[in-house]
This record gives sequence, C-alpha cells and structure tokens, in this order.
Amino acid sequence: MTTTVPDVLRDAGALVVPRLREAIATLSVENQQVVDYHMGYRDAAGQPVQRRGSKSVRPGLALLSAQAVGGTEQDGLPGAVAVECLHNYAFLHDDVMDGDRMRRQRETAWVVFGQSRALNAGTGMLVLGMQTLLAAPSAHREAASRLYADTCQTMMTGQGMDIEFEHRLDVTVAESMAMTRGKTAALLSCATTIGAVLVTGETDVTRALHEFGTEVGVAFQARDDVLGIWGRPEQTGGRPPGFDLVAGKGTLPAVVALQAGGPASDELRALLSAPPLDQDRAARAAELVDRAGGRQWTEDLARRCVATAEEIVAGLELDDSVRDGMIAVARMGLPDDVR
Amino acid sequence: MTTTVPDVLRDAGALVVPRLREAIATLSVENQQVVDYHMGYRDAAGQPVQRRGSKSVRPGLALLSAQAVGGTEQDGLPGAVAVECLHNYAFLHDDVMDGDRMRRQRETAWVVFGQSRALNAGTGMLVLGMQTLLAAPSAHREAASRLYADTCQTMMTGQGMDIEFEHRLDVTVAESMAMTRGKTAALLSCATTIGAVLVTGETDVTRALHEFGTEVGVAFQARDDVLGIWGRPEQTGGRPPGFDLVAGKGTLPAVVALQAGGPASDELRALLSAPPLDQDRAARAAELVDRAGGRQWTEDLARRCVATAEEIVAGLELDDSVRDGMIAVARMGLPDDVR
Repeated sequence: MTTTVPDVLRDAGALVVPRLREAIATLSVENQQVVDYHMGYRDAAGQPVQRRGSKSVRPGLALLSAQAVGGTEQDGLPGAVAVECLHNYAFLHDDVMDGDRMRRQRETAWVVFGQSRALNAGTGMLVLGMQTLLAAPSAHREAASRLYADTCQTMMTGQGMDIEFEHRLDVTVAESMAMTRGKTAALLSCATTIGAVLVTGETDVTRALHEFGTEVGVAFQARDDVLGIWGRPEQTGGRPPGFDLVAGKGTLPAVVALQAGGPASDELRALLSAPPLDQDRAARAAELVDRAGGRQWTEDLARRCVATAEEIVAGLELDDSVRDGMIAVARMGLPDDVR
Repeated sequence: MTTTVPDVLRDAGALVVPRLREAIATLSVENQQVVDYHMGYRDAAGQPVQRRGSKSVRPGLALLSAQAVGGTEQDGLPGAVAVECLHNYAFLHDDVMDGDRMRRQRETAWVVFGQSRALNAGTGMLVLGMQTLLAAPSAHREAASRLYADTCQTMMTGQGMDIEFEHRLDVTVAESMAMTRGKTAALLSCATTIGAVLVTGETDVTRALHEFGTEVGVAFQARDDVLGIWGRPEQTGGRPPGFDLVAGKGTLPAVVALQAGGPASDELRALLSAPPLDQDRAARAAELVDRAGGRQWTEDLARRCVATAEEIVAGLELDDSVRDGMIAVARMGLPDDVR
C-alpha cells in the first residue's frame, strides 16, 4: 500500500475529465465560459490552458465505489461526473458568499465574470450533475439521483449554518460538527456511495460506504481546518497562515478553543471580537487557538475518523486493490505530522 | 367559459399549498425561515401571516396537465409542488442578481436576510422540487424528474442571457425571444406537461402540452413586458410605469423598438445610453418605444401565441372542463385592451 496520492486518484482524472468536459459542453455558451474558466480549462479570455494533472479525490472515490460492489470504473463514471459538478457548484457559490477573491492561485470566477454569472453557472453545474445521473445507463439511476438530490439539500443545510455562524462567537462544537457534516462530509459520502448505488441500488453495503465517506469527509475537513490556520501557503493554494481566522471563519479549531474556557480562550475571544486581524494579531490568535487545545482536538478528531473509516472498510468484502485505494484515500485525512 | 381567473387556478391553491408547506418544512431551519418569508407565509420576525388567496397559475396548470391525460388532480400534485419550488427558486435568485428590493409590495428576501441566505434558500427550493418528484408515487417519476432537470438547465441558459443582455443595447429580437423562451416559457411548459408526464410518461400528447406551455409562456412574458413599461402599479405589484426601462431591462418592446430604426428608435437609443432615467425621461422613453412599434409588436406576439396555444388545445382530446381551463389560462396572456 502506498501512502502517497493513491494511483486510483491519479488515474481517475484521465477517465473522468473527458466525460466531465462533454457534459459541460452541453451548458449554454455563457455558462460554459464561466465553468471552463473556473475549472482551469480556459483562461479569462477563453484560451485553452495547459492543465497540470491534479488529484481527483471525489471522482476517484466514485469510481472506487462502483468497484467496491463488483462494478467497473465505467459503471461509476456518471457518479464521478455528477460529484465533480456538485463540488464545483459549491465552489462557485461559496466564493461569492464568502467574498473569496482567490482560489488555486487564480482569481475566482465571480471576480472575473461578476457575481450573477458565477452564481448562475454554479447552479447550472448542480443541475448538470442531476441531468448526468438521470441519463446514466444504469437500472439504478433513480436511486443515484435521489442520493444526489439529498446530498445537495444537506449541503444547503450546511451552507445555511455556515452563513449564520459567521456572525457568532458562541458557536458550539456540536453546531460546528453539524455544519462540517453538511458542507464537506455530505459530498464526500455521496462520492463514496454513488458508484455503488449505480451498480446495485441501495443496500447495506452502500450504507456502509456512506458512513465511510462521512468519516473521511469529517477527517478531510478537520485537516483542512488545521491547515486553514497553520498551513503553509503551498498547502493551501497560496493562502497565508491564519487565513481562516482573518476571514472570520469559525472553523473547528477556533470553535473548540473558544468553547474551552480559560485564559487563552478568553484572550482569543477578545481578539476575534475586534476584527479585522492584522498579521501580528492573526499569529497571536493562532497561538491562542493552539494553547486552548483547538489544534490538538481537531487533529485527534481527524485521526479518530480515519480509524473508524478503516474499521468500516475492514468490515466489507473488497478486492485488495479497492480496499487499499479506499484506505489510502482515508489516510489523506490524517494530520500532517503523522503522514 | 369564463374570462376571469379560471376556477381551476383558484382551487389549485387549496390543494397545492398544504403539500408545498409540508415540503418546505423539510428544509433546514435557516432555509425554511427565508422561504416562509419569501412565500408570504411568515413575516420577517417569523410570525404567521394571514394570506389572501392568490392565483396559482403554474401549479394549477400542473394539475390540469394530469387531468388532460385522464389522471386526477392528485396525480399532478407532486408536479405542482415542484413547479412552485422552481418558480420561487427563480424569484429568490433573480432578485439578488437584479438587485430588486421589492416584490409583491414587500421587501425581497435578500434585503431582509442578506444575499447569501436568500441564494442558499433559493437553491434549496430548486433541489426540493427535484426531491419531491423523485419521491412521487408515480411509475413515471423518473421521466418527470428529467423534465424538471432539463427545465432548470434551460432556465439557467435564459438567465445567463438575461445577465449578458443587461449591458447591451444591440440585443436582437431573436436573442430576446430566446431569452424569453428560456426564462419564462421553460417553466410554463414544464407546468403544462409535468402532470401528464407523471400519469403517462412522455408521449405525443405530453409533447403537445409542452408546446402549448411554450406558447402560453411567451404570451405571458410579452404581456408582462408590456405591463413592465405601461402597466399601472396595481397591475405590477406596486412598480411605477416605465420600471423596466428605468431598471435597464432589455425586455421585448424595447428591443424591438431599438432594432426598428428611424427617428424614434434613434432617440430611444440615445436616452437609454445615458442612464439613469428620471421619471420624465422614462415617460419619454416609453412613448418612443410605443412610437417605434415596440408595444404593438409585443402585443401582436402575445395574441399570436395565444391563438397558437388554442389551436394546440383544439387538436387534443380533452374533457370540456380541462379544455376550458387551459384556454382560459392561455387567454390570461392576451394584452389588456382585448380582455
């Protein structure tokens, strides 16, 4: 087993991207332009961009998901395309809502095309995923479509919480976990399940795969939340350390630290109550989150989730390559220090 | 036959609203709050509002649609709920994109709850319509879901054009018609078809019903476009005459007038090239649109579409009450002077 990026994820791109681009080509000219830019296929002037290979975690999981119940990668392909559509819908909308101007070292789509076009193209992507599933050559495409629609709604729930939490310093750990389950884990568990649902419909195995995805999704978010405060720019797509604190995002480490009580917690609350944070204050805030236990708690959470995910995988009858792939993906959620 | 609001539309509300509210109650607390306000069920503080009965054109059409192929109103109900979800998704998003602060004499949802919450709740409504159809007790729910998803995508296409056209004074009549088909007619034809698809799946009759809806949708939009310039506030939900011109919306009458050529057309272009329009200049612009033939053309379009819609209905085998209902709805698209 490898602990670098699993082969299945590297290979997924080659299989999924052409199908995804075919799907995107069915969008209207106006929406296609926005999506092609956002996906990194074209620059703002519409010129093709030479793409570097990127890891394709979610579509790769959708292909693995089909293989987990004896299907082929091809069987999982509509699910992989749909999950990519949904993932990128979320980027396009969230960047507008959060006012984020940069993603993956490029200006976000709304900065280039305006908010309305980015939003409209984003909703177009959400619908495109649904259209892809409803046209899938599978006897179980209806069940897969239902999973997709339910996932969308859960993501709206998570995003609704995220918006509400932005103005609050009293968010509880339970609330923050619920948001994480909605925003990140729902999409991840859709990815780990949808290929299998396309092959077999809903079964005990697909339900186990869904739980696996939830654990991995929470681990990924926990890891991302740690990177959002202590990550180096090369780990975070160019964002400076402390970014999430400066942006006022109540991610798990900060929520845990604020709820912990004690002097570090109190000083942190005082700091975060008086935005904006300059670089020095952001560095101090990051230190206080650490001191109040927010970093340790979040890293422990990621480790626990990965362990649970591995247990779920151990309980399934899987080919070695599928099992190895799933475990390798799960371990991508481990905090950096133990990787 | 009556030429007032057809009975079927008055009755539809009583049947559809309880089911719609049940569906809305499955949204997250945060999204429900926005939607309940937007729908007029609750005020901004969350207190229930006594609702006056409102005409329910689109859900009424969905019920009629089921009856048109021998089904019951109950058969069409999931379609009626879905169409209402989609219609209100469009309101919630478009009001943000257009910056419209008032709708139906109330502040729009984004003014009350902020743009992010309105957008997120709007997308939640789009997805809720899909979830409703995927759970419909119908052997043809998959076909109905496909119709719904395709309708959504066509609406994104129309909205994308609308956004792009806002900055242009050289929009052609063909482009403006394409936008109208996307934005309004797609939803209307979904309404006239989805009930029948739930009963029978896709057939020649459902395709005819779809064409009927397209004609009615274009007529409705043409009529609305006329009202958007020459309507009295009581016809336009409180908007002042000339509103669409002041707002810079390139609706059909203005596009036709700008493309017509001649002195009125030229003066109009000069006026619209130098926004904002005050009341006097808006009144003058409205006069010029009329003089350049934009009003006449648009009213003729509405009449032609209603006539074609009636021909389509005449070609179908329908119960008298269904036929009368459909014709009465179509005639709601006629310009005011002949009603």
